[in-house]
Amino acid sequence: MKRTALSQISHFIVVLLSMCCFLASAQIRSNEEAARMIFDEALQNGQSYEMLRYLSEEIGGRLSGSPQAAAAVEWSRQVMEQYGFDKVWLQPVMVPHWVRGAKEQASILSKRIGTRQVNVVALGNSVGTGPGGITAGIIEVKSFEELAQRRQEVAGKIVFFNRPMDPRVIDTFSSYGQAAAQRSLGPSEAAKYGAIGVVVRSLTTLIDDVPHTGSTNYQLNIPKIPAVAISTRDAELLSERLRLEPSLEFYFETHSQMLEDKLSYNVIGEITGSEFPDQYIVVGGHLDSWDLGQGAHDDGAGCVQSIEVLRIFKELGIKPRHTLRAVMFMNEENGLRGGRKYAEEAQEKGERHLMAMESDRGGFLPIGFTLDMADAQMAKVKTWASLFHPYGIYQFEKGGGGADISPLKPQGVPLIGFLPDSQRYFDIHHTSEDTFDKVNKRELDMGAAAMALMVYLMDREF
Amino acid sequence: MKRTALSQISHFIVVLLSMCCFLASAQIRSNEEAARMIFDEALQNGQSYEMLRYLSEEIGGRLSGSPQAAAAVEWSRQVMEQYGFDKVWLQPVMVPHWVRGAKEQASILSKRIGTRQVNVVALGNSVGTGPGGITAGIIEVKSFEELAQRRQEVAGKIVFFNRPMDPRVIDTFSSYGQAAAQRSLGPSEAAKYGAIGVVVRSLTTLIDDVPHTGSTNYQLNIPKIPAVAISTRDAELLSERLRLEPSLEFYFETHSQMLEDKLSYNVIGEITGSEFPDQYIVVGGHLDSWDLGQGAHDDGAGCVQSIEVLRIFKELGIKPRHTLRAVMFMNEENGLRGGRKYAEEAQEKGERHLMAMESDRGGFLPIGFTLDMADAQMAKVKTWASLFHPYGIYQFEKGGGGADISPLKPQGVPLIGFLPDSQRYFDIHHTSEDTFDKVNKRELDMGAAAMALMVYLMDREF
Repeated sequence: MKRTALSQISHFIVVLLSMCCFLASAQIRSNEEAARMIFDEALQNGQSYEMLRYLSEEIGGRLSGSPQAAAAVEWSRQVMEQYGFDKVWLQPVMVPHWVRGAKEQASILSKRIGTRQVNVVALGNSVGTGPGGITAGIIEVKSFEELAQRRQEVAGKIVFFNRPMDPRVIDTFSSYGQAAAQRSLGPSEAAKYGAIGVVVRSLTTLIDDVPHTGSTNYQLNIPKIPAVAISTRDAELLSERLRLEPSLEFYFETHSQMLEDKLSYNVIGEITGSEFPDQYIVVGGHLDSWDLGQGAHDDGAGCVQSIEVLRIFKELGIKPRHTLRAVMFMNEENGLRGGRKYAEEAQEKGERHLMAMESDRGGFLPIGFTLDMADAQMAKVKTWASLFHPYGIYQFEKGGGGADISPLKPQGVPLIGFLPDSQRYFDIHHTSEDTFDKVNKRELDMGAAAMALMVYLMDREF
Repeated sequence: MKRTALSQISHFIVVLLSMCCFLASAQIRSNEEAARMIFDEALQNGQSYEMLRYLSEEIGGRLSGSPQAAAAVEWSRQVMEQYGFDKVWLQPVMVPHWVRGAKEQASILSKRIGTRQVNVVALGNSVGTGPGGITAGIIEVKSFEELAQRRQEVAGKIVFFNRPMDPRVIDTFSSYGQAAAQRSLGPSEAAKYGAIGVVVRSLTTLIDDVPHTGSTNYQLNIPKIPAVAISTRDAELLSERLRLEPSLEFYFETHSQMLEDKLSYNVIGEITGSEFPDQYIVVGGHLDSWDLGQGAHDDGAGCVQSIEVLRIFKELGIKPRHTLRAVMFMNEENGLRGGRKYAEEAQEKGERHLMAMESDRGGFLPIGFTLDMADAQMAKVKTWASLFHPYGIYQFEKGGGGADISPLKPQGVPLIGFLPDSQRYFDIHHTSEDTFDKVNKRELDMGAAAMALMVYLMDREF
């Protein structure tokens, strides 16, 4: 008797809750209204900015394997649990553990005008010079073709890759892409010809004193040689000095080393889908960052925006039809192990992914999305464009989704890259200047809203 | 004989020069190519940023009538002469001369928990309190309607206008417009009911400690009462304290005063039109700024972008058909005397203006233009939209051209407002934070290029 009464009450509660959910969803009469509700919530009650403040200023730079990365894992787990997501879990992944060590030193050594210190940082994954550093003649090249032509001059020298980013290109990620190989592949290319060290021009269109780090990838069976990025102002100076005195020497000293792989995690939060709980929509960013700054734009912004997307759904009482996942990927910067691990497990478990979206281009003003999917799917997404126009978002173009979600592509998952304005990104990218104060609250909130709207439309219409 | 030879040589040179000019223009095969040339020049060799650095950091804040405003007049005259514009001249105009005096003071005086200093600045044009300041009870209102309803409570008190800017509005100039009357008209509205002072919430969506100044306009035959803007954080604090203790008092002290009008100038640079030298295309910004910061975004940016438009034409060898004028208007912030003077003289001289454009919304990412012209003209301008799309510029909407060019409207001049992204503008608008370091070079350069392209199309197609 007692059990029956309880059971009736519990049944009544379930019915009541279902009605509430139904009403909450029923209140949204159109996609236009959903868009307005989502943007209003983000702009009026947005939590991204405060989340990012904590991640940037209290935890700080968080390279894979560092104590800060471990703290960021635990922090993001707690945040998503406190928001009451249906499921929050850690996905273990072994990550490379590179450490910078003591501060780098570098100088131009001129027989004519003496020594001039310059600003450098070791490239991520690079080996150190050892104490005392290396001192050698230096030759400047602008491309791998030029390097190959001058291969006879390289042995025992330092190679200075000095290709600037082209300032005329509007999408700065394109000009970055054009110039980035000198950093990622330059050290091995130079080592092939017997170089003993590499100096790379920082990847930015600014001329300033701040060096930009970033990964280098040593090729198998090629000697690993030390490598640094030099600030653009010092790159210009070095180039000019070399023109006047080709025989000058360059000295640099780095203390970086690659340690044993370390256990870390992707952090995943879910809101369970009401109709298709075993179909997934992923929205993510990467939790690791370079050690030099606070990883605020790269990619704290993408992480907090991804959490904010799920928070907005929950706060507005929107029940997604498919399961939404906010994924904080580990180790984008120097290994992509987290992204690979996620795709691997999705494959093993046979999880169907309806879509995956990444935010890893900074927390700037949203201007569009890049689409990596079949033409018919792309055409469908483009029919939604007018829903975004009132929020200043006009660009829906073919393009990559993002590094962390790219391993899902072979599984046929449609990928979307969140596209904020790119004009300011490479001012601070991979530097000590990527700090919280460079992030604007409204831009960050609007980005989260744009992502939430795209997820909403995918969930309803795709 | 000698004279004939010389004359022949000089004729030859003229023909040669004409051919060069013809070739230079002939080289531009399409509007798309002109767009690309203009953006390339701005992004690769742009001078806006260095100009703005000087104006902001070397000259600084330059309120009408100040020595800095005089320095800015002379500086912009010199800059345009050095660029070799065909004509550079000063247009005299008498401007109001308001001075802030010693730093403002303000406190919340509680009988229960003592005194708490708060951050305020005097409103532009406001009268000072005199030494000792004013101390009185304070009542908080959100609107003029609420003020009218509570008119009986106002006599002898300070009125606290505490209407926030609505964060949900995407165009922050709209939310600014909705809330700005409390600053521009609030003091006189309060004085009508016997108030002795006014405190206005700063116009920004940020919650921080930085007060935002701006003009107030006293109405005729209403007592002029002192008025300050309070930082948003302190506005929130004051509101909360008033809720707990409605009888608390407020103290503030300002030392501002309006002096005699002073002689100043609009600064005008011209490139003479090749076909219609007596028809004018104006591109301008205002040279004066508030005294608290450096007037970098407001409106140093608009001034240097206007000069840059003409420089780009000259550098690319594009001969405009109509005469192009870069106009640095004086006194937009607290009088609009420069804008009125310019329109008045244009009227008197019977100058035909083909178009006037203003940049006075900060040096941020260009996103569009607002158009204030006949429908047929607007339709024509909108046919150019696709030329701007490769540069991320999509918005061509009906809207005001700008304060300084608005006096040209009764003469039937089509007006265009340059529209940069507005999300960050009210973080720093009219504050000590409007400094050069808040300006991004690429954004500033792209804005100048967008303006130059619009001027180019107007000159060729309108």
